[in-house]
Amino acid sequence: MDISKLNESDRNFASDNVAGVSPEIMKALVECNDGNASSYGFDAITERLTSRLCEVFETDLIAFPVATGTAANALALSVLTAPYRSTICAEDAHINTDECGAPEFFTGGAKLLGLHSPGGKLAPEAVDSIFNKTRTEGFQTAQPVTVSLSQSTEWGLTYSVEEVRALAAVAERYSASVHMDGARFANALVHAKARPADMTWRAGVDALSLGATKNGALAAEVLILFDASHRDAASAQRKRSGHLWSKSRYLSAQLLAYLEDGLWLRNASHANSMARRLAGGLTGVPDIELAQPVQANEVFVWMPSEVAERLAASGFRFAKWTRGAKTHRRIFRFVTSFATQSNAVDDLVHWAARIVP
Amino acid sequence: MDISKLNESDRNFASDNVAGVSPEIMKALVECNDGNASSYGFDAITERLTSRLCEVFETDLIAFPVATGTAANALALSVLTAPYRSTICAEDAHINTDECGAPEFFTGGAKLLGLHSPGGKLAPEAVDSIFNKTRTEGFQTAQPVTVSLSQSTEWGLTYSVEEVRALAAVAERYSASVHMDGARFANALVHAKARPADMTWRAGVDALSLGATKNGALAAEVLILFDASHRDAASAQRKRSGHLWSKSRYLSAQLLAYLEDGLWLRNASHANSMARRLAGGLTGVPDIELAQPVQANEVFVWMPSEVAERLAASGFRFAKWTRGAKTHRRIFRFVTSFATQSNAVDDLVHWAARIVP
Amino acid sequence: MDISKLNESDRNFASDNVAGVSPEIMKALVECNDGNASSYGFDAITERLTSRLCEVFETDLIAFPVATGTAANALALSVLTAPYRSTICAEDAHINTDECGAPEFFTGGAKLLGLHSPGGKLAPEAVDSIFNKTRTEGFQTAQPVTVSLSQSTEWGLTYSVEEVRALAAVAERYSASVHMDGARFANALVHAKARPADMTWRAGVDALSLGATKNGALAAEVLILFDASHRDAASAQRKRSGHLWSKSRYLSAQLLAYLEDGLWLRNASHANSMARRLAGGLTGVPDIELAQPVQANEVFVWMPSEVAERLAASGFRFAKWTRGAKTHRRIFRFVTSFATQSNAVDDLVHWAARIVP
Amino acid sequence: MDISKLNESDRNFASDNVAGVSPEIMKALVECNDGNASSYGFDAITERLTSRLCEVFETDLIAFPVATGTAANALALSVLTAPYRSTICAEDAHINTDECGAPEFFTGGAKLLGLHSPGGKLAPEAVDSIFNKTRTEGFQTAQPVTVSLSQSTEWGLTYSVEEVRALAAVAERYSASVHMDGARFANALVHAKARPADMTWRAGVDALSLGATKNGALAAEVLILFDASHRDAASAQRKRSGHLWSKSRYLSAQLLAYLEDGLWLRNASHANSMARRLAGGLTGVPDIELAQPVQANEVFVWMPSEVAERLAASGFRFAKWTRGAKTHRRIFRFVTSFATQSNAVDDLVHWAARIVP
Repeated sequence: MDISKLNESDRNFASDNVAGVSPEIMKALVECNDGNASSYGFDAITERLTSRLCEVFETDLIAFPVATGTAANALALSVLTAPYRSTICAEDAHINTDECGAPEFFTGGAKLLGLHSPGGKLAPEAVDSIFNKTRTEGFQTAQPVTVSLSQSTEWGLTYSVEEVRALAAVAERYSASVHMDGARFANALVHAKARPADMTWRAGVDALSLGATKNGALAAEVLILFDASHRDAASAQRKRSGHLWSKSRYLSAQLLAYLEDGLWLRNASHANSMARRLAGGLTGVPDIELAQPVQANEVFVWMPSEVAERLAASGFRFAKWTRGAKTHRRIFRFVTSFATQSNAVDDLVHWAARIVP
Repeated sequence: MDISKLNESDRNFASDNVAGVSPEIMKALVECNDGNASSYGFDAITERLTSRLCEVFETDLIAFPVATGTAANALALSVLTAPYRSTICAEDAHINTDECGAPEFFTGGAKLLGLHSPGGKLAPEAVDSIFNKTRTEGFQTAQPVTVSLSQSTEWGLTYSVEEVRALAAVAERYSASVHMDGARFANALVHAKARPADMTWRAGVDALSLGATKNGALAAEVLILFDASHRDAASAQRKRSGHLWSKSRYLSAQLLAYLEDGLWLRNASHANSMARRLAGGLTGVPDIELAQPVQANEVFVWMPSEVAERLAASGFRFAKWTRGAKTHRRIFRFVTSFATQSNAVDDLVHWAARIVP
Repeated sequence: MDISKLNESDRNFASDNVAGVSPEIMKALVECNDGNASSYGFDAITERLTSRLCEVFETDLIAFPVATGTAANALALSVLTAPYRSTICAEDAHINTDECGAPEFFTGGAKLLGLHSPGGKLAPEAVDSIFNKTRTEGFQTAQPVTVSLSQSTEWGLTYSVEEVRALAAVAERYSASVHMDGARFANALVHAKARPADMTWRAGVDALSLGATKNGALAAEVLILFDASHRDAASAQRKRSGHLWSKSRYLSAQLLAYLEDGLWLRNASHANSMARRLAGGLTGVPDIELAQPVQANEVFVWMPSEVAERLAASGFRFAKWTRGAKTHRRIFRFVTSFATQSNAVDDLVHWAARIVP
Repeated sequence: MDISKLNESDRNFASDNVAGVSPEIMKALVECNDGNASSYGFDAITERLTSRLCEVFETDLIAFPVATGTAANALALSVLTAPYRSTICAEDAHINTDECGAPEFFTGGAKLLGLHSPGGKLAPEAVDSIFNKTRTEGFQTAQPVTVSLSQSTEWGLTYSVEEVRALAAVAERYSASVHMDGARFANALVHAKARPADMTWRAGVDALSLGATKNGALAAEVLILFDASHRDAASAQRKRSGHLWSKSRYLSAQLLAYLEDGLWLRNASHANSMARRLAGGLTGVPDIELAQPVQANEVFVWMPSEVAERLAASGFRFAKWTRGAKTHRRIFRFVTSFATQSNAVDDLVHWAARIVP
């Protein structure tokens, strides 16, 4: 194994957001830095982005580029969920546990109803059950009107097209909307080998937070709404939340490059394959076992704490996963990205094997 | 006049945010794109930025980089102003007229008390008077606890150090805080030939929204708080408003390059001098006269509407300034930036002179 | 003049809310205190109230009883105005100056655009002008979508049916709604000798805060919406703002008694006539003159400060009216109510005449 | 059994808020209806109320009378919990399930962390565990800073003084505040035979929503804060949420009468004893068994659905209790009040026994 060119930075598996920017995207930023352009999204690049998204998703849509996933998610919910309503999501959903209350802030106080959901995946029966229960409770309950699912989930699992459809069917039965937190949408898409349209609006999804940052962008996500009647609300909410860039071309340019020539899918494929490689390697080590199937670019393993400590001491970075219940205490998370090198993966496996005798 | 190299993009004087990114800043972005780095602001570049800001401002401070001026302003106010309080500002202040209610959103509904203020400059007497009036009104009034001033103002004027001090003294008399919207802080600073510290905390300013985007950055502003007791609140509010970048290094790198070797002051000086050049040229044209003194990088002129229409028809971009009263209807705004070329300015003056016989 | 039965409490002209409860209303409270009843508005009395309101206003409507005027107003605005929009009102409107930011709270941060309006009356031209201006400003402005007028105004003036119609016509031109703060609606109605329907929905009013507290109730106002599509929103917002009484019958009973046999109009007529009597008396005193015509139950007079001080020293209560501009400093407000006794009015005039030589 | 005087209204066990007003309290309302009085809480009765509360609770305190429990609770949380923080409560807590998001509204979006808590009682270990977990999660989590407990709980259980102390000790360890939802505080107090001070501030409670409506008032609760530093915030929030009555004397008069001569404790004792009588009777019926111990004025029983249906058909009113899990489906709730008659209880038992063969 040639690990001579590795440095400590390469040993960072803490998250896919520790990676830098995809060269193609950085190039696009440099290239669009030419002369003046209309600000606040009235530039030609932003116009091209919307067209491109319509092609990629095979439908008319409205698109709101922003810099962070939290912004995209909270913006989506603020459009779909009135302050006196609620959103059903997995207990471990990013919107419920990692955004410091952003959805509550943007919606003006709408509640999140977090369902216990193994692997972070909502089960249609559980969603149906909570709708059914709350609908009988009347005016005292903040009625759920939105279902939000993470694709892929916070536990590295993905929904198939059929699974998305089944959830959306439940939502529709209760006249509720469906939001998809797609911070790692591309990773799920390549896993499912599905078309973007099939995975979203054709399956019943109303709003998609399409992530790019974790998959090679500098800071770019785009809220996609398949119902143009939300235009005014989304537009105004983006502005008043401070998420409309004056120099919008630099946001749109990232996203255009991201979608160009399938870069988003190539990057995601690479990240996913590195995750599988890592999972394959680690499961060959005694005392380490997978905590979840690896379907995207995250690897969750049960590992003795002392092994984790010695890996950390050797400069490896990864996350202690305490979310959920106490019984997960010794689960650790490793995340790969478009930039993960195969020898860095092998290096990690090698060290783990050395530590565990 | 050599205008052979001008294209339509060079004729865009609509705002300083139509400009691209300063080459030095783009270079810094490219250079920091190397390997993995801790996310959410725990990277080395962000650490360096804070140190650098402490040097530049000659004091300890806490700094919160964000992508837009609206975010910096609203974040500042959310820290300084409780939901049941209010902020005194100029009627024409950006926070009051151009942010679609962002301050009200971030503060949870605190009111803005917009004072009629010629040129966008708050007068200490007027501020004292509104404090005095509201303090006698008691619990029914959302009591003002913050004064927000724009440096430079939305009308291209600047406050001297003494003027800032006088306003802050009034605020202090009523135990109120002072926020400075410094979207064009550098332009005001070079006009005043003042030290950053003298213009801010030494004069009584508690929070500064230090702008970089309009002066050469891609998308970067930094909220500076001179009182570290606000750390938790600002930190949490930045996160839940979606303004904490996962790849924070790319935000900090812009700001570091901005402050490096005085780039921010050089850029601002250039913009200011282009504004003076434009003002000088336009005032030589009959029927055109200055509506405000030119102290920063904005030029406001009274101009016949037909002249404006013919300039626009020739590809020039600038703003019809209708804010304030109907009598301002024929005021137009031209903004210069770090990227404005002197021959583009001369070209504009030339055309204006040709149109006005 | 027989003032032998007067006590200091009778000398209180500070507001109409210093009065007690109309005997008819207190009687209704005592009478409805019989046995159990369904809570949260599902009781028979509340049902009767809605029917009665439909009769009084000659149309179908939905009604939301609450205990305070601030609640009724803020609830109305929360239904009509999205968080990123704004409401046009008079600068001196109660919603803008006396509710400590309740409208901003309930709407989630929507702005109030307070127009300078002599006597607290909105002028159609001024409203048209602000609509026109903001509509050209685009996405950066919190667009006004509601016009709120006070009937009667905070300066004791009333709108005629024609004036309400004219304002509503302007609002309609811009697809905006109309809210009427009717804390003193009955006083305006009897002054105009108009039918409730003509003064409201037939003139274009969408939402009415119908006040009862200031005119004889213990604590009762009712938000009336003439468009039933707002039912869910108003219902939920009332609950989550804590304004749905569990024992709703005691709220509805007040309002039913208020409307019974024209009590509301009788009470208002008395209050108005006491105001006219007071105005007539005071204007007979040298150095005292009316600041506003007396159209409802409030009397605003210019009066030397020393006269005011001596009246206060004699136990009279009234308000120093500093709102608006400094030039109003010596305006004082006297308010009459359903409970004001004519000899208390005469007593006040008598004392004022004695003080002013 | 003499049930000749019973009517259908007497068969209403749906809630304690279906009852009317205690005669002593109605008398107080009638008696305070004499002459004018200062509005907005500056009246003599409100002043007396505060004094009386200080006596009853044996300490200095600040008190904010409002009309509903939702208002008192949400107001309390808005003072204790910043928008970017959270409150720990039982999953079934009224604030989490029955107030349509009022806490989220008043706090500006602070989250509720609902812990699975059998009987609605928070366990110190569970509270400690969630504090411990969230404290390690850092800035992405809305950190809990308040613990809210219901006394008595939504399942009719009560905390002993020692239990309150234990919970408050956990909260203190994490620098968190303690709120007690005392909608049925008197019922818990008489059950525990404890002094109000021992049950609250001496045990570590910072804020108490002291209920009166469910126990004999018309519409009156009082938020009690044992830390006067919250005065400004609570005062302003009460005003801007529309919960400051202009004729405050009628709110305070209810509460004064409530506390006078131990009426609150007598009423609660009666309600509790009626609940015990009912529980005793029902558990004598085959196929009916208690679902929870009866410690206050609520009786939860397992009962065959058909029995419930036939009771309902006979005019009895009670609640189907579906909260929590599906396994509670056949739990029904009966609530007694100060006004419940013993023969009505016996009547219910009699019918139940007749239905169940």
